[in-house]
Amino acid sequence: MSALFHAGISGARGRMGRAVSQVLDARDDVVVAARFDWGETADLSLCDVVIDFSTPEASVALAKTCVERGGPALVIGSTGFTPEQDAEIEAAARTLAIVRSGNFSLGVNILIGLVEHAAQRLDPRDWDIEVLEAHHRRKVDAPSGTALMLGEAAANGRGVDLKTVRAAPYDGIHGERETGRIGFASLRAGGIVGEHTVLFASEDETLTLSHSAIDRSLFAKGAVAAAAWVRTRRPGLYDMQDVLGFRQA
Amino acid sequence: MSALFHAGISGARGRMGRAVSQVLDARDDVVVAARFDWGETADLSLCDVVIDFSTPEASVALAKTCVERGGPALVIGSTGFTPEQDAEIEAAARTLAIVRSGNFSLGVNILIGLVEHAAQRLDPRDWDIEVLEAHHRRKVDAPSGTALMLGEAAANGRGVDLKTVRAAPYDGIHGERETGRIGFASLRAGGIVGEHTVLFASEDETLTLSHSAIDRSLFAKGAVAAAAWVRTRRPGLYDMQDVLGFRQA
Amino acid sequence: MSALFHAGISGARGRMGRAVSQVLDARDDVVVAARFDWGETADLSLCDVVIDFSTPEASVALAKTCVERGGPALVIGSTGFTPEQDAEIEAAARTLAIVRSGNFSLGVNILIGLVEHAAQRLDPRDWDIEVLEAHHRRKVDAPSGTALMLGEAAANGRGVDLKTVRAAPYDGIHGERETGRIGFASLRAGGIVGEHTVLFASEDETLTLSHSAIDRSLFAKGAVAAAAWVRTRRPGLYDMQDVLGFRQA
Amino acid sequence: MSALFHAGISGARGRMGRAVSQVLDARDDVVVAARFDWGETADLSLCDVVIDFSTPEASVALAKTCVERGGPALVIGSTGFTPEQDAEIEAAARTLAIVRSGNFSLGVNILIGLVEHAAQRLDPRDWDIEVLEAHHRRKVDAPSGTALMLGEAAANGRGVDLKTVRAAPYDGIHGERETGRIGFASLRAGGIVGEHTVLFASEDETLTLSHSAIDRSLFAKGAVAAAAWVRTRRPGLYDMQDVLGFRQA
Repeated sequence: MSALFHAGISGARGRMGRAVSQVLDARDDVVVAARFDWGETADLSLCDVVIDFSTPEASVALAKTCVERGGPALVIGSTGFTPEQDAEIEAAARTLAIVRSGNFSLGVNILIGLVEHAAQRLDPRDWDIEVLEAHHRRKVDAPSGTALMLGEAAANGRGVDLKTVRAAPYDGIHGERETGRIGFASLRAGGIVGEHTVLFASEDETLTLSHSAIDRSLFAKGAVAAAAWVRTRRPGLYDMQDVLGFRQA
Repeated sequence: MSALFHAGISGARGRMGRAVSQVLDARDDVVVAARFDWGETADLSLCDVVIDFSTPEASVALAKTCVERGGPALVIGSTGFTPEQDAEIEAAARTLAIVRSGNFSLGVNILIGLVEHAAQRLDPRDWDIEVLEAHHRRKVDAPSGTALMLGEAAANGRGVDLKTVRAAPYDGIHGERETGRIGFASLRAGGIVGEHTVLFASEDETLTLSHSAIDRSLFAKGAVAAAAWVRTRRPGLYDMQDVLGFRQA
Repeated sequence: MSALFHAGISGARGRMGRAVSQVLDARDDVVVAARFDWGETADLSLCDVVIDFSTPEASVALAKTCVERGGPALVIGSTGFTPEQDAEIEAAARTLAIVRSGNFSLGVNILIGLVEHAAQRLDPRDWDIEVLEAHHRRKVDAPSGTALMLGEAAANGRGVDLKTVRAAPYDGIHGERETGRIGFASLRAGGIVGEHTVLFASEDETLTLSHSAIDRSLFAKGAVAAAAWVRTRRPGLYDMQDVLGFRQA
Repeated sequence: MSALFHAGISGARGRMGRAVSQVLDARDDVVVAARFDWGETADLSLCDVVIDFSTPEASVALAKTCVERGGPALVIGSTGFTPEQDAEIEAAARTLAIVRSGNFSLGVNILIGLVEHAAQRLDPRDWDIEVLEAHHRRKVDAPSGTALMLGEAAANGRGVDLKTVRAAPYDGIHGERETGRIGFASLRAGGIVGEHTVLFASEDETLTLSHSAIDRSLFAKGAVAAAAWVRTRRPGLYDMQDVLGFRQA
């Protein structure tokens, strides 16, 4: 948080774009050099880094432009990419420093590490894993992207692929729980900002690892921290585990 | 818990039958006069009341026998009755005192009353309701019978029928939450004895009402309390709300 | 929420005063007719009701002024009154309609009713009660006023006085828990808006009733609802149980 | 858990001694070769390992006897040792393999590792830590030994000494929370087997790591696993982190 830098905001009029704008305005060490949305032109030469919460198409287009111009670095928070769009971001990261994440909160990214660590040590024959998430009534999909990241961390810890062990929601006659499965459950109610819990349970004890967001600005702050970090990195595709120093070079 | 009484146990070799047996053995004011299972004959003339955790067929047959003989009173904890079987139990209750319940715990039955009370006072346009339950890995169906009882209490409080407002599990693209729906989610893991939570959430606050069973003997104790209560009642179909005095005559 | 009314804000520059101001500004049916702090004069003749989050002294002075002038009605959210100051507010309420509360949230006021209801039905010889609250790191006192209201509701349900049954925090060698006591525990951490839990536990089961505030505006909204309600009432000292219609005339 | 071994039980008539006895009886690979209490003589030559849940005096005396005889190995679960008694156990461990722990549950020992890991990564200027525990009404001291182990793990993660940062219970006017403190709160109610939670909270988010014991046999099973592990070890003082392989040689 030392040297002054210049940031652009892509998706500036969206909910996250406005939250990022507020966080940047409150900091002394950043100048907002550009605010733009899909279809608008922006002078990227003024920016050391662009924070992008837009759409997969807009993100891919922005990444291509940055590759052509030789910068600036990117922080991408858009979600819902197709495998083809994923490949385009990966290609851009060969010559561009990009941080991409489904959740910029420090707490969630710590939780991901803890879940992997616990899953490694708890024998799947004895311990079952369930992921529970709760969000506000306006959320349209389930499980949340973050719940899936947590499920993947649990699967990684066990050395398996989430796709092959993911259980369907329990509804009706589902039979006894299969050993090794990872289940997901979702609640949608009121204005809940975002809560995630990973439950590990054996016959005699439970271990519960949870994260709760108090304030939405949390995610914007994390994206800004990623921007401050990535603007001086070498080309590559990074995530919040890198930004937070949880992954050794 | 004053006068001595004689109890029979139907479904005596099942898990609940054995738990009931242990609870009865630990009490000074009850004599176990008969233990039997489906297909076995028992001398019902020795019993003031029979506690029955068997199957719907066995329960219906037992109720018919008691009607023919003019007693004894019954406590029925079997679950999974068809509408026809329900009707047979109701018919038997015209001449027999029967307590029937899906959950004999005092705490759950208090919770049912609290949920109805809260649901009456919280405007469905502002407040969403979700029911969450967690049970051990051997449970084969979802949501639990108790979760459904809690959902019904919430629907009663709102003056609606649960069948018409019950939401499907959130999975995939489910769209924004519909006003007035009541959702259910289930977790299955390890040896969890039984946990139930009803969540009420508005835009700015949440109210969470939960029950957790510490020990399975809980349900057996409640059934025995129901037995002590029902043996001196007039014919009728009662539930735990009656036993606990929560419903005015 | 129909007819237009004029509200004053006492303690207008405090945190709650500003929150009330924001809520009033967002409503179509209220005009803010006066904003003032201790020592400032305000034209009360413009107000149908004044919402007061100031200090006990300022609240007592304001109540006396309103008594002398014959209005307007008051909503008092100040806390920390001495018994003498309490008596002055009660005296003012002989000729003035006043709502006074330590917590204006709908959820907390529902919770108070549920706690009393449950405490009435759960035998103190079998069930222990503990109250837990968590708040942000800037809170300077414990337990919270709301935790004490919940403890009082539990004591009321049991027909005892909280003062005589309140347990000291468990710290060091405290000995076995005494039957009938009500304990309190507090957590202080980060930006937690406000969480309250009342735990009822017997040997075999627990019942947990909790409230969590998602957003601070919650309390301001409740105070404004109280203002809309009280401006047309007869003189008297009311609380949120009256405003919410939980107490029969 | 393959080869047959012979175990002794010290403190055999105590609650934990009886639980250990049950667990041993249910296993095929262990023979209980001796059961004894303080003041009783036992033929230690029959034992490969002794599991000891007695008192500090009895544990120290047993350790000395084992040192003199050259075995067997020990698993010590007694608590409340003085610094002098600690030193005697450490001295015995120069020639004897001893596992000593305040909590033999796998889940708690995983939790200790997770808490240290999280505390290392969460800046104390931004994140507060609180430890909450709940136990049955018969527990006579607070905080629990396990809560203190968790607080120590958090302090270790931050590179500080728990003694210097431990906060007193919040009660009355406690002032704003001091940066860097670690607080403890305790609940005592009903038959709660044992629950521990470590809360990390910043201004915008919370991370909550919890353990809950479903069944008391949990601790006995862990002690037996420690016994199976320690009987073939070299002399040394080990804890459950060693038994579980969480600490590199």
